[in-house]
Amino acid sequence: MSTAPAAPPPPVLGTYRRREAARRLAESARTVPSLAKFEQVAEDTQARVLTTTETVPLDRLNGWHYDERAGFITHESGRFFSVEGLRVETQSPLVAWEQPIINQPETGILGFLVKEIDGILHFLMQLKSEPGNRNGLQLSPTVQATKSNYTGVHGGLDVPYLKFFQDPARRRVIADVRQSEQGSRFLRKRNRNMIVETNEPVDVRDGFVWLTLGQMHRLLAAKDLVNMSTRSVLACLPLGVAANVSEDEGFGAALARSLAPDGPVVHPLVNVLSWITETRTRSEMRARTVPLSILADWEFTDGRITHRAGQHFDVIGVRVEAVGREVAQWHQPMIRARAAELAAIFVTRVRGVLHVLMQLRAEPGLTDTAELAPTVQCTPADCAQLPPEERPRFLDLVHSARAVDIRFDTALSDEGGRFYHTGSRHLVVETGWLPEPPEFRWLTLGQLEELTQHSHYLNMQARSVLACLRSLFPGDDDEQHHQR
Amino acid sequence: MSTAPAAPPPPVLGTYRRREAARRLAESARTVPSLAKFEQVAEDTQARVLTTTETVPLDRLNGWHYDERAGFITHESGRFFSVEGLRVETQSPLVAWEQPIINQPETGILGFLVKEIDGILHFLMQLKSEPGNRNGLQLSPTVQATKSNYTGVHGGLDVPYLKFFQDPARRRVIADVRQSEQGSRFLRKRNRNMIVETNEPVDVRDGFVWLTLGQMHRLLAAKDLVNMSTRSVLACLPLGVAANVSEDEGFGAALARSLAPDGPVVHPLVNVLSWITETRTRSEMRARTVPLSILADWEFTDGRITHRAGQHFDVIGVRVEAVGREVAQWHQPMIRARAAELAAIFVTRVRGVLHVLMQLRAEPGLTDTAELAPTVQCTPADCAQLPPEERPRFLDLVHSARAVDIRFDTALSDEGGRFYHTGSRHLVVETGWLPEPPEFRWLTLGQLEELTQHSHYLNMQARSVLACLRSLFPGDDDEQHHQR
Repeated sequence: MSTAPAAPPPPVLGTYRRREAARRLAESARTVPSLAKFEQVAEDTQARVLTTTETVPLDRLNGWHYDERAGFITHESGRFFSVEGLRVETQSPLVAWEQPIINQPETGILGFLVKEIDGILHFLMQLKSEPGNRNGLQLSPTVQATKSNYTGVHGGLDVPYLKFFQDPARRRVIADVRQSEQGSRFLRKRNRNMIVETNEPVDVRDGFVWLTLGQMHRLLAAKDLVNMSTRSVLACLPLGVAANVSEDEGFGAALARSLAPDGPVVHPLVNVLSWITETRTRSEMRARTVPLSILADWEFTDGRITHRAGQHFDVIGVRVEAVGREVAQWHQPMIRARAAELAAIFVTRVRGVLHVLMQLRAEPGLTDTAELAPTVQCTPADCAQLPPEERPRFLDLVHSARAVDIRFDTALSDEGGRFYHTGSRHLVVETGWLPEPPEFRWLTLGQLEELTQHSHYLNMQARSVLACLRSLFPGDDDEQHHQR
Repeated sequence: MSTAPAAPPPPVLGTYRRREAARRLAESARTVPSLAKFEQVAEDTQARVLTTTETVPLDRLNGWHYDERAGFITHESGRFFSVEGLRVETQSPLVAWEQPIINQPETGILGFLVKEIDGILHFLMQLKSEPGNRNGLQLSPTVQATKSNYTGVHGGLDVPYLKFFQDPARRRVIADVRQSEQGSRFLRKRNRNMIVETNEPVDVRDGFVWLTLGQMHRLLAAKDLVNMSTRSVLACLPLGVAANVSEDEGFGAALARSLAPDGPVVHPLVNVLSWITETRTRSEMRARTVPLSILADWEFTDGRITHRAGQHFDVIGVRVEAVGREVAQWHQPMIRARAAELAAIFVTRVRGVLHVLMQLRAEPGLTDTAELAPTVQCTPADCAQLPPEERPRFLDLVHSARAVDIRFDTALSDEGGRFYHTGSRHLVVETGWLPEPPEFRWLTLGQLEELTQHSHYLNMQARSVLACLRSLFPGDDDEQHHQR
């Protein structure tokens, strides 16, 4: 073209680098040094950081008010988030409901900073206190920032290490994908899940510690320690490498084979994508916001919003006082579950390759209709009151699972910035082959890993419990994969 | 697990079949028999089918009315679609606007039925008349059905061949993905783009004809012949096979290398996905529906809705009379553009591999913020009035392109069920290397093909013009790829 500028040399052609990252991350997962340093940092931070949270009536929160015109609870700045009513209609005229929901239409960053130390990739993790945490500190990403945080609406200090995530020149991207938050609590909320590697020297601030992936995998087994954001990002890490454990009969080998890209699968990916397309088309919902005051089945009394039958969750107000945080004192609404939830996945070995039974589940706050969810996702206390035919499928099999078949069982918290003392039992149960109901499919970890490169395929609970399953990836200190 | 049923044998493990489909489709693309049969069917159908469309004032359409409470134009059944006002706010306080938009929150089917005939995959295509078509018949998918169509709201006849798309036992899925319609005309409208293969005998009805992919590629060069839905589905076909044309210097060989999976690329896919994530985060919009009567810059007079400056498009009413269609006579609103649009892509060869300069473009009706769009997507007549610094980037280079660099140049129509005599000039221009502005990247056809497996990556205009570029895939009758 005559008017085009003279062609400068194009950049060097690269090839797909995801597998190289996966190889180095798998090596980090196999590396499990002593946790003594981590425990020291946790102890020091615990002594330095103090967050106290007390309940305050929703209608007496400084900075927040009930907007009579809209019927929402909003912040006087117009920022942060609002609590709104939602009316949901499905394609079945028999299924419709109303509920409160958090509207926070902005995309935050959940970021892991990664660096090679002594030849092994290490993750810079933060021990962080959030107002809703049941037990003080939890293991958090390097950066966990709402847009309000990182654009300064909090009037807080700079977010440490944020520059590595914002400046392309300072990092190499391993993954960068927007993923949904809980679609029954948030209206179309998403966060950027980022993993970036740097070669620059990194100054380790108070409360931060370098961990290998193997160390994080060990810590996932501790109750309420690894926070929700960390689990979400862990699930987005590429970990699939060509499996060279073909003779091994153990669970760990079946897991490693499941992660391998291009390994054998029950359902080719094109069929999985078609099943997702079809189910999403069938399960489209219409959801629109309505005033909190007109929600059927919910009442706003005693300074909180509760379900009349005492189910689901409350919206409460809290006053937070934090020493060692960027802002020292504030009020805010929070979600408090009435009972622990359950996120359980069934796994089975098909010719030596682990498959996970995933459910495609519609939730009103999801950006795209339905996402893959754990085999069972529910609040068991609420389900106990339902007649058997209305209970979630496979819940009975969870209740009757034998201890020897339970591969993972840990209570883990929801995000402590929005959820107060709220969490789920995370369960991995090995079963025999089970027939697939229409909304369920047996998938490999490699297939799920391919889908996590893209937004809107795995819901928060699925990512969370899959991070737990992936934590059983055999480490060098680990003999269990040579057994059973 | 003790309570699990005895395990039945699991299905046979399959491996990823997309490449096998691509190999067979590439073979179909290379096969270009005579078009005599197609021309005969077109002639016969033209003699049998007659659709006449005349303009009627919007406020005098049978079955439609202006809903005073909502401020929308709706159908009395509450079905089909509505015309609503939209207020759009971007993250820049300086950029906000209002416009009419079509709200049709349901997912239709655009489907190709494929069958092997004499060892080559053939596509069952329909010569179909739509009310907005400028020139009568256009080449349409086997099935092109809104949900109203296929659930019978039209009171029309059964949709022919629909069973192959609905019954999993009767087909093998090649692709099945929901893709967006035009995000500046439709509010979150999507269609299932499906390609399914059958082994059953297929009865060819009047108006239908079997074509190879190579024949369709030739027909794409004809003005207003291959309709928008067909172009959309064509772009979702897997066509990438390992390239064995390493010595060939021609354009066709550079195109084939660009389609090859795992070929060399300027930007690894992980970086492309990160760029999409970042740009989408930055370009989030808020859009909400408002009454048509309050739209700034638009007026509802003389039975149509027009832009006060005579730009963009009109919403008009039409009366349609169709002989040979399932419903004989009806009224409906339609969109009529004020001038032809432009969908232009620049391509360049980087070390013998064709790359396409794609733009990430936000549109208010898109489900997920922004999608990949052609290098230039605009209405040139509207842009001529803008000061130079506000004109779309690269538009000047389109205007000054040399004829020898234009690889494809055909006027093609928008979907004739909603758009009246409206279409775009589709242009493929070969250039030298151009530096990438922040919202632009040079990508290979293989990368774009990988992204079309998933929803919400390529907008309608991008799919449409990429189908045109892919139609230059060399056929066996084609010597041009050995030249230049």
